[in-house]
Amino acid sequence: MKKEALKVAVIGGGSSYTPELVEGIIRRYHELPVRDLYLVDIKAGREKLEIVGALAKRMVEKSGLPINVHLTLDRRRAIEGADFVTTQLRVGLLEARARDERIPLKYNCIGQETTGAGGFAKALRTVPVILDIAKDIQELAPDAWMMNFTNPAGINTEAVLNHSKVKSIGLCNLPIGTQMQVANLTGVSAAEIDMEWVGINHLNWATKILVDGVDILPEILQKAADAKGMTMKNIPDFGWDADFLQSLGALPCSYLRYYYMTDDMLAEEIQASKTDGVRAEVVKRVEKELFDLYRDPNLTVKPKQLEQRGGAYYSEAAMNLISSIYNNKRDTQIVNVANNGILPFLPDTASIEVKCVIDSQGAHPVQIDTPIDARIRGLIQIVKAYEELTVDAAVHGDYNAALQALTIHPLVTSAKVAKSLLADILKENEAYLPQFK
Amino acid sequence: MKKEALKVAVIGGGSSYTPELVEGIIRRYHELPVRDLYLVDIKAGREKLEIVGALAKRMVEKSGLPINVHLTLDRRRAIEGADFVTTQLRVGLLEARARDERIPLKYNCIGQETTGAGGFAKALRTVPVILDIAKDIQELAPDAWMMNFTNPAGINTEAVLNHSKVKSIGLCNLPIGTQMQVANLTGVSAAEIDMEWVGINHLNWATKILVDGVDILPEILQKAADAKGMTMKNIPDFGWDADFLQSLGALPCSYLRYYYMTDDMLAEEIQASKTDGVRAEVVKRVEKELFDLYRDPNLTVKPKQLEQRGGAYYSEAAMNLISSIYNNKRDTQIVNVANNGILPFLPDTASIEVKCVIDSQGAHPVQIDTPIDARIRGLIQIVKAYEELTVDAAVHGDYNAALQALTIHPLVTSAKVAKSLLADILKENEAYLPQFK
Amino acid sequence: MKKEALKVAVIGGGSSYTPELVEGIIRRYHELPVRDLYLVDIKAGREKLEIVGALAKRMVEKSGLPINVHLTLDRRRAIEGADFVTTQLRVGLLEARARDERIPLKYNCIGQETTGAGGFAKALRTVPVILDIAKDIQELAPDAWMMNFTNPAGINTEAVLNHSKVKSIGLCNLPIGTQMQVANLTGVSAAEIDMEWVGINHLNWATKILVDGVDILPEILQKAADAKGMTMKNIPDFGWDADFLQSLGALPCSYLRYYYMTDDMLAEEIQASKTDGVRAEVVKRVEKELFDLYRDPNLTVKPKQLEQRGGAYYSEAAMNLISSIYNNKRDTQIVNVANNGILPFLPDTASIEVKCVIDSQGAHPVQIDTPIDARIRGLIQIVKAYEELTVDAAVHGDYNAALQALTIHPLVTSAKVAKSLLADILKENEAYLPQFK
Amino acid sequence: MKKEALKVAVIGGGSSYTPELVEGIIRRYHELPVRDLYLVDIKAGREKLEIVGALAKRMVEKSGLPINVHLTLDRRRAIEGADFVTTQLRVGLLEARARDERIPLKYNCIGQETTGAGGFAKALRTVPVILDIAKDIQELAPDAWMMNFTNPAGINTEAVLNHSKVKSIGLCNLPIGTQMQVANLTGVSAAEIDMEWVGINHLNWATKILVDGVDILPEILQKAADAKGMTMKNIPDFGWDADFLQSLGALPCSYLRYYYMTDDMLAEEIQASKTDGVRAEVVKRVEKELFDLYRDPNLTVKPKQLEQRGGAYYSEAAMNLISSIYNNKRDTQIVNVANNGILPFLPDTASIEVKCVIDSQGAHPVQIDTPIDARIRGLIQIVKAYEELTVDAAVHGDYNAALQALTIHPLVTSAKVAKSLLADILKENEAYLPQFK
Repeated sequence: MKKEALKVAVIGGGSSYTPELVEGIIRRYHELPVRDLYLVDIKAGREKLEIVGALAKRMVEKSGLPINVHLTLDRRRAIEGADFVTTQLRVGLLEARARDERIPLKYNCIGQETTGAGGFAKALRTVPVILDIAKDIQELAPDAWMMNFTNPAGINTEAVLNHSKVKSIGLCNLPIGTQMQVANLTGVSAAEIDMEWVGINHLNWATKILVDGVDILPEILQKAADAKGMTMKNIPDFGWDADFLQSLGALPCSYLRYYYMTDDMLAEEIQASKTDGVRAEVVKRVEKELFDLYRDPNLTVKPKQLEQRGGAYYSEAAMNLISSIYNNKRDTQIVNVANNGILPFLPDTASIEVKCVIDSQGAHPVQIDTPIDARIRGLIQIVKAYEELTVDAAVHGDYNAALQALTIHPLVTSAKVAKSLLADILKENEAYLPQFK
Repeated sequence: MKKEALKVAVIGGGSSYTPELVEGIIRRYHELPVRDLYLVDIKAGREKLEIVGALAKRMVEKSGLPINVHLTLDRRRAIEGADFVTTQLRVGLLEARARDERIPLKYNCIGQETTGAGGFAKALRTVPVILDIAKDIQELAPDAWMMNFTNPAGINTEAVLNHSKVKSIGLCNLPIGTQMQVANLTGVSAAEIDMEWVGINHLNWATKILVDGVDILPEILQKAADAKGMTMKNIPDFGWDADFLQSLGALPCSYLRYYYMTDDMLAEEIQASKTDGVRAEVVKRVEKELFDLYRDPNLTVKPKQLEQRGGAYYSEAAMNLISSIYNNKRDTQIVNVANNGILPFLPDTASIEVKCVIDSQGAHPVQIDTPIDARIRGLIQIVKAYEELTVDAAVHGDYNAALQALTIHPLVTSAKVAKSLLADILKENEAYLPQFK
Repeated sequence: MKKEALKVAVIGGGSSYTPELVEGIIRRYHELPVRDLYLVDIKAGREKLEIVGALAKRMVEKSGLPINVHLTLDRRRAIEGADFVTTQLRVGLLEARARDERIPLKYNCIGQETTGAGGFAKALRTVPVILDIAKDIQELAPDAWMMNFTNPAGINTEAVLNHSKVKSIGLCNLPIGTQMQVANLTGVSAAEIDMEWVGINHLNWATKILVDGVDILPEILQKAADAKGMTMKNIPDFGWDADFLQSLGALPCSYLRYYYMTDDMLAEEIQASKTDGVRAEVVKRVEKELFDLYRDPNLTVKPKQLEQRGGAYYSEAAMNLISSIYNNKRDTQIVNVANNGILPFLPDTASIEVKCVIDSQGAHPVQIDTPIDARIRGLIQIVKAYEELTVDAAVHGDYNAALQALTIHPLVTSAKVAKSLLADILKENEAYLPQFK
Repeated sequence: MKKEALKVAVIGGGSSYTPELVEGIIRRYHELPVRDLYLVDIKAGREKLEIVGALAKRMVEKSGLPINVHLTLDRRRAIEGADFVTTQLRVGLLEARARDERIPLKYNCIGQETTGAGGFAKALRTVPVILDIAKDIQELAPDAWMMNFTNPAGINTEAVLNHSKVKSIGLCNLPIGTQMQVANLTGVSAAEIDMEWVGINHLNWATKILVDGVDILPEILQKAADAKGMTMKNIPDFGWDADFLQSLGALPCSYLRYYYMTDDMLAEEIQASKTDGVRAEVVKRVEKELFDLYRDPNLTVKPKQLEQRGGAYYSEAAMNLISSIYNNKRDTQIVNVANNGILPFLPDTASIEVKCVIDSQGAHPVQIDTPIDARIRGLIQIVKAYEELTVDAAVHGDYNAALQALTIHPLVTSAKVAKSLLADILKENEAYLPQFK
């Protein structure tokens, strides 16, 4: 028997993304009766929570739907009895992200929010908080689904899968974003596109691109060569080399530029850091503008400008997933789950990002058709090894695991650099890393 | 782009099951535009083909749909350019089946059409014919899907998967039949039931039984104890022991009675063979009655009595599958496919029967949620080992593989019995086993 | 640095086998300086302990070696500070074994000490005692090696590997016994024979038989057909069928007669039970005679008659193993260890019996060369599944696991029979199965 | 029955290493009766062959042993009927090696004989020649063992294992060299040291270092920190950082400096290339001096100076292996063989370098004890993926595989650099790469 009224808790509810989520909840109310929406944030985020919460309330009011929006700083109250708990938090705020992006540049290494040493620092800060939330859920809402939208989503998902008994799924807007890019390239609508998606969060390849059941990957690989727009908002739009795409035989996701075009990407980052600032600094300005808009008491819809922010289709992905679970839809979506043999070259306990059947019991990965070639496999394996070590480091405050995680990361250039990076990261994030005390 | 007119070839079209298939084609014409339906049979089956073919034509005529029913003895003509080729053939007719069922009884072993030494004999006769059809398809309709409904479906599917490049799926009505049994037991409609189905053809366990996303397996295990009706038409209806079901923790399929209740099943078979005759002999009488009905020029629908025959829901299962492929539905169905890691304790090349996502690219198995316990695993492994050896024996006419296949089968009582059984089987089927010459 | 004086504790030291072990210790004193030999037994075995202990002391005295033989009923004192602890115990004595062998015969099932329902009953009684000893070792001699010679050795080893942290190896005289059989068949000395040995304890196949590096398996398979003497003392000497051996392509161990010749073996057991008695009853008479000999104060050597007892080469196997560990020999021996991928079709945690390199760190299994065919694989898998369930049943007193273990055993004929067998076994062994209370 | 007179063919017999091999043959003549030693080389190497061949003859003469040394340019005659064929060839001579080492430096990538882009170029040239030799062996000496000492040994071994049916083993002097380094560090003799060696050729870690069965790895990790001499002759002697070694928990082989100290190693290489020249150029001078010595008609022993050359212990490793096969020794040695599950995170078909039992049937890998951590696993996996692609590229002349191989190599900095490197490599090696035509 399906419940008739749902409680949804959004941890990090003061985020600028929240209006997108609220819009999604409203749009799907007919199939997903959210009665209580709890937006919860930490004390430092109270102002943003109040601004975005007020907008959320205006949006709901305009819709005329019987949804109660609650604003709170009490996370346990928000979680208690919830049906779905989503996380979209940022430990240390944009200031910490800016540091994550700047520190690696000192050593001529990629400085990125989720990839490389920057993502590593973020993971150290975030994993303990995510596991703490999981503990609250286990105690206060043991039947709830935990939806991790918090980056680095693959690492956070893996931490929850292996260090908690909570039912959880990790979600990212990259698959749906890639689908949109392909749609733009071909003129087909995104809904008609069905991809075979291989890899782990932010390290993926589309190995089939089906339209009406026909694989158009060869055509896409030709069209994508040197094309503009095959990227996400936060990733520079360098075109892919035609010979490279042909030799690869799969469509790489936008983040793979950091691995395949390390030199150009690094040059661009260094250049940008000197002019516009690192991405966190750009986002900070965008956010300021957004919150200025949100403050407007006449605003009752998600403003257009939010799409600039980078999280496009985020609400779409989130609400698709929650609705399919609630409605036992048995449709397929690309999410982050435990591997258990789907990618036989990774540990069973690894989180992977693949197509899954979604029903009330959760996400059930579907076998990959295409034999996965060494050209894809090797890169996934080393980055997953890095992720495993990072989870260990983050959970146990293990310096050795941390040093080795950075050392083997393909975007860190030597063990010596890894040691320096780690020293900087531990020092600059001291306030957020009690596990390393 | 979907084709607007489909050609379907039914090998073994003179089967008494054909009206069920024709009914299914008519009922789904709105979503599956079958323009040409070829019913093909061998010379010995010409009379039955003509009778059932005439009925098929009357059924189509009554429907008013633009479907052309073709009757032919020329298999290659039927296959040429087909979109779907289904097989429902019986090498050696019911006479051979009767022998398959009687020979093992001489040695106090289970004599059954698909399970044990009887199924082994059937496999030796059938695999070469199925591979021959696959060869024709590869030559004459390389894009066609081959749907194996021919028993032993698991072995035939495995043979095609590993000895042909044809796109193929194996299908059985046991999963849908079990769903119906569960539906009857609970009062829920079959369509609402979603099972996690683990195993290989005719050796399966339901490890979850979901209604509206909730697992009602514990309740079913209690209700199924000593219940009547938890079986297929062709399998004696002995009730399951309550303690046994509890200790198993999964719902066994009907055929598992041969393994779990060997003594009672054998006693029943020996008794029946002396009174009603073995199952083939019963079926022969049923078939005679059916064909008498089919002859009636006023009959324009599938007669009720067909349900007695044992192949209930066969059309349902078949047309579901074909329609999902044609319409790229991405729904889930239980079919027979290559393992490739879904059951990690079986070889990758094994055929398994599990839930799959069905789209235009075929059937994509979904990961099994439930950790598969030793109580289930061991039995699947030894029977699959038997199947592997049987495919080898059937394809290569390998006496050694044949002797070992029978020897290790759990329903064959010793190597000495296996040797005698094999001698009898080879002798009695001499006309159908050119590979052993 | 190697210790210069070793302490060895023999649990079940009152066994009739002990003189063989003592002989082995004396013979190898030059490379294995056993200073203290503790023979420990339970109160009920005090008389036998004293008789065999007195003989042991006379043997040592005659040797003139500085070995101290200690007799004790205090297991903890014997274990404390030991370097090697061997187990050769029999919970419930021969009376219990006789019941193990008789109960299955009631249901027309094989009644054998280690194989089938008899071995199952023995496992239920023995596993808890073995784990208790392991616990003592962990506490009192954490660096000691535990050598399990107690049957069912595969199940006991698996229990210790997975439920204790003690360093342990399981040992059986079947490999060395088979080597002797092959030696007799060919005229080569046993020491020159090197076998590739695949499987689990008492369920093994020699897949290569090397003499001077050349594989003589094909020749052995021909010679072994219908040959006498290819068996152990306790297993009837039925000859192997020539066609069967050819089709198998490997030399089966003696115990495989229970699986491949179930009918003949069962007939023989039923017959014997009515005349000579079951094996336990025969052994009882042999033991009585042995102890009468042991009592002779003039006896200072292992009497010839001990070889009749069935444990031939036991001392050889035991002392080989202990000496290779102590001397870090890096030679190869066939023992029972954790699988961890050597037989990729079994769980990593399974105990397997294969060739290992023996050094001071223990036993390191060597990769199997021969691709393992389905004819061998399937049988190993189902019996290992039975063993897994049996360990669970024995450790946790889990009725469900116990019922399923018996149900899936290839030598138990149905679930109904399994249920009856289990009821009898639990009742007849009540005094020894506190875990099932 | 062991042969009493052996024929050994050395492909690349004109190498400066040959005197070392000849010395080894002489020293072991008592256990390895080499009657005919064929030194074979190509026409361009005739002069060196004659010089080194004359020395070999003088060495044998001095020994007084009945060994016939044959010099020939006819490879097929040398192989015909041989018992062992060893390869120590260099396609394109030192000139090609110099190019392999210089090209990557242009792009700020490591330029090394076997590691990175340099090793890749060498593989493209060498694999086809090695496979050609394997073909000759199959035809002319089907029972012979092929011993690959030719670099890149891992890739060459993998090519032969998967593209030939010849019995083959790959060998490298790095394990024995590392053992010597450890011996020097501890004062123990090398013969007393037994390592657990994990990885693939030139990418290995010692995960246990046993002396008399006791693991002294922790002690070694402390001593190795910043120590001098922990390297091979051809690899700069940068010390390992203490924290790094502790966090790694295993002793890295010398070649791992290219991965862990990429920046320092690259700087050193660039510097050296401007002063002493790349390593090939240094070696050329050493070789010239060696051949000047070899020319001396009074020289009848291997000159001391050969040890400077880099191939120390090469003869030791080679003759150990051949003797253990010939004498069916069943001892353990570290060699390159097919994986088949020993490193479960690599494909079965991968070549790996691990401890093996050596007998007349070849090399049988021993299970790894230590659970292999992500810190080691990830790096092995990506380099093995590179190797797989490189074998494909080399065998099939596949440009796409070649481009991707270089792209994913951790020491190649981007796909763009990979493309440029590949263009240079194909152009500069045109004469040696007919497969890319």
